Amino acid sequence: MDQPAYSPATFKPLTFHDAVPRFLSGADTPRAYLERCLETIAAIEPKVMAFAHLNEAGAREAADASTARYNSGTPLSPVDGLPIGIKDLIETRDMPTEMGSAFYKGNRPGRDSALVQALRQAGAVIVGKTVTTELGMSHPGPTRHPFDLRRTPGGSSSGSGAVISARMLPAAIGTQVLGSVIRPASFNANWALKPTQGGLNRGERQGFSQSTVGIHAGCAEDMWAIAVEIARRVGGDPGAPGLYVTGEAPPPAFKPRRLAVLETEGWPLAEPKAKAAFEQALDALRAQGVTILRRGDHPLLEALEQRVIGAMALATDVCAYESAWSVANMMAKNPDALSASLKARFELGCSVTLAQYRMRLLQREEMRGAQAALAGEVDGFIGLPACGPAPLPGDTGGSTNRILHTTGNPIMNTASSGLGCPVVTVPRMAIDFMPLGIAITTQPHQDERAVAIARWIAEAVPPIMV
Amino acid sequence: MDQPAYSPATFKPLTFHDAVPRFLSGADTPRAYLERCLETIAAIEPKVMAFAHLNEAGAREAADASTARYNSGTPLSPVDGLPIGIKDLIETRDMPTEMGSAFYKGNRPGRDSALVQALRQAGAVIVGKTVTTELGMSHPGPTRHPFDLRRTPGGSSSGSGAVISARMLPAAIGTQVLGSVIRPASFNANWALKPTQGGLNRGERQGFSQSTVGIHAGCAEDMWAIAVEIARRVGGDPGAPGLYVTGEAPPPAFKPRRLAVLETEGWPLAEPKAKAAFEQALDALRAQGVTILRRGDHPLLEALEQRVIGAMALATDVCAYESAWSVANMMAKNPDALSASLKARFELGCSVTLAQYRMRLLQREEMRGAQAALAGEVDGFIGLPACGPAPLPGDTGGSTNRILHTTGNPIMNTASSGLGCPVVTVPRMAIDFMPLGIAITTQPHQDERAVAIARWIAEAVPPIMV
Repeated sequence: MDQPAYSPATFKPLTFHDAVPRFLSGADTPRAYLERCLETIAAIEPKVMAFAHLNEAGAREAADASTARYNSGTPLSPVDGLPIGIKDLIETRDMPTEMGSAFYKGNRPGRDSALVQALRQAGAVIVGKTVTTELGMSHPGPTRHPFDLRRTPGGSSSGSGAVISARMLPAAIGTQVLGSVIRPASFNANWALKPTQGGLNRGERQGFSQSTVGIHAGCAEDMWAIAVEIARRVGGDPGAPGLYVTGEAPPPAFKPRRLAVLETEGWPLAEPKAKAAFEQALDALRAQGVTILRRGDHPLLEALEQRVIGAMALATDVCAYESAWSVANMMAKNPDALSASLKARFELGCSVTLAQYRMRLLQREEMRGAQAALAGEVDGFIGLPACGPAPLPGDTGGSTNRILHTTGNPIMNTASSGLGCPVVTVPRMAIDFMPLGIAITTQPHQDERAVAIARWIAEAVPPIMV
Repeated sequence: MDQPAYSPATFKPLTFHDAVPRFLSGADTPRAYLERCLETIAAIEPKVMAFAHLNEAGAREAADASTARYNSGTPLSPVDGLPIGIKDLIETRDMPTEMGSAFYKGNRPGRDSALVQALRQAGAVIVGKTVTTELGMSHPGPTRHPFDLRRTPGGSSSGSGAVISARMLPAAIGTQVLGSVIRPASFNANWALKPTQGGLNRGERQGFSQSTVGIHAGCAEDMWAIAVEIARRVGGDPGAPGLYVTGEAPPPAFKPRRLAVLETEGWPLAEPKAKAAFEQALDALRAQGVTILRRGDHPLLEALEQRVIGAMALATDVCAYESAWSVANMMAKNPDALSASLKARFELGCSVTLAQYRMRLLQREEMRGAQAALAGEVDGFIGLPACGPAPLPGDTGGSTNRILHTTGNPIMNTASSGLGCPVVTVPRMAIDFMPLGIAITTQPHQDERAVAIARWIAEAVPPIMV
């Protein structure tokens, strides 16, 4: 794999759901599927560095148990035997949880986070911990982009995005506060779901009021199956109703009647080629009879665009304030183990007052109100999941924040993160042979609808290369 | 202290705010105040067993630093020098956090929870960790009631309630899910505040959708000052606006025009003497011109009473569901370290489905709607904070739940816990020479109003002994 060119027409990520019939017939086994993943990992991991930790022995044991279940015709769930990576922010009983931070070097909590527990119960095979930026914030980890080793794979779910484009695994778990699932997913030609705020149980990671876990996968089928199995077993966050699953899995493709373009405050920073590719996608949708609304077309849509201006600054303040007490503990114990970027966030957090925080919460509620006002107007929203393809080093994507986003600018995602609504990204485009997704957003709790629209888009929009 | 009889007319708990002028004049010092507390602790702790851990050296060091600040006329806050106990569920960097559980024996997280950090920054003196029931649930710790060593001090904040009635400390931090602050506070003649859900930052303890930290103190002044200093420094839970503090501290006594009696589903279990004392309190209020509404008097009040029936079962299901994944980790690691009572809760948690959990959340929202509907009708609510005084062993207070509440029945508190509204308990009554409080409840975010009404009640209702 010497930095292959990406094409949305020809790239075939690993998929799992289509292997299940062969497991049931005995033509293939979860153990053999895993071994093929491990072979790819052995070949590619030294260059890509997507894993913080691998547990091959544990994975083989789990795959053998899964193989035995298929042999007896009793798989535990549609994801029984599915090899999956877990972002290294999330606790796993059998591996370290080092969170991309020198502070947590050697940290072994000996516990499974809620979703890891659910995945094991469903028979999934936990292969390893995927690289995260430091504590899921800005300071990057070692992972390199499988399609161009000079580039970042995105962050903070760097490894979870990269294992898909490198075909090392069919799926991985990420987390998102600003844009940490959707951005790396776009960079790496993943299907990904950032669920409704609270939709999938964050387990021990309840410290932010706007953050979610998310699913990276090679296809919609695996992505949705994983989300369903988590929700069924451990639900959502405390007090949240969890992911709604009402129909068949995956949700059948749904052709929207009307979609609104959600430009967000990131639009001025989007690269011209990314915009050109996106306009081609919109043209393809119009050609199929979908009405596309732009911000000038409807006062409520314009109101939403106005309200989401500043979503980045809002999220930065909110998260810095919410994490300040926790980072203070780290500062007191071992400040040398923290990056300059984390310290800058800590200073920011200490400078935000409770009164300012309350104003930020109000601003967020206003954003959410403006989105809700469009519930009857459009079936969903469409937008760019990133300003362009994965950037080269030193390209901060126009970020003027004093906290540098060295894994790419999350500014295209801060609106939907603040809105707390579901986002699905679909890999349909390439810019200079590097992937770029299309983001589909719906009202909160309409995750199923977002996936259904995204599946239709994947059929309706031809591969676009600019 | 040989099991003295309690009288609300004569009992004088420790207070701190009134010592501050003497600290500033040099007539007394925080170190001397602390030494008096430590002397009482040395005398009484062997019988009462309110502490899971004491850090006398650390407390003396903090008290000396506070003394130096008063000597130079620069105290950090109104609670600078205040000796305080921290419920042993909450992390402290200098002491173990064993949570009343054999599972956490020797656990030393080496971190300060958000509120502990805030208290240290405000100059408070962290004296020790107070005994909790196992993980704050049902299985009791060793603490005995200072006014009658045969009796429970209540739970789960057993030690935090008892240190006040034993005059060992002027204040302590507790936590409440069902009734774990307000019930022991009532049993131990504390003033106590269970704030609005999310009002004070729970730090690492974000796992339940209905739980709060709370303040136990000997007087309203200290109780409120502690809450204010926490809110000012670390706010509320992520996404919550935190405790509202708008006026002078403490809030001046406020005479309500209309109060509604909130009987709750616990009313049939309240002891006749407790009801008789409560009716005397209501008569005293009527004599002062306060209109008292009973459930038959207003259809909206009757609706609220109807909606809060089942609040105990609701909370039990909700909390068991929310904690199941976490207890599963403990079960996998060391089941022998868990009580039968905890295991019963775990089984319950595993039996609740996501669909049932959603119905419980809806039921809780309906309760909250019924309370909100009374916002313009009454200034607040008044009720019993417990079914009676601290029970003798074997007296389960009518609890028929399969999870026995061996530290007294929380059923009088499950309504306000589910409502997520503030509750203040005021020590004004005695039943057979054991304390019983009066609970004042307001709408969510009206914590300041609840304290103001409670302060007026403390003046308007004479000591009642039945």
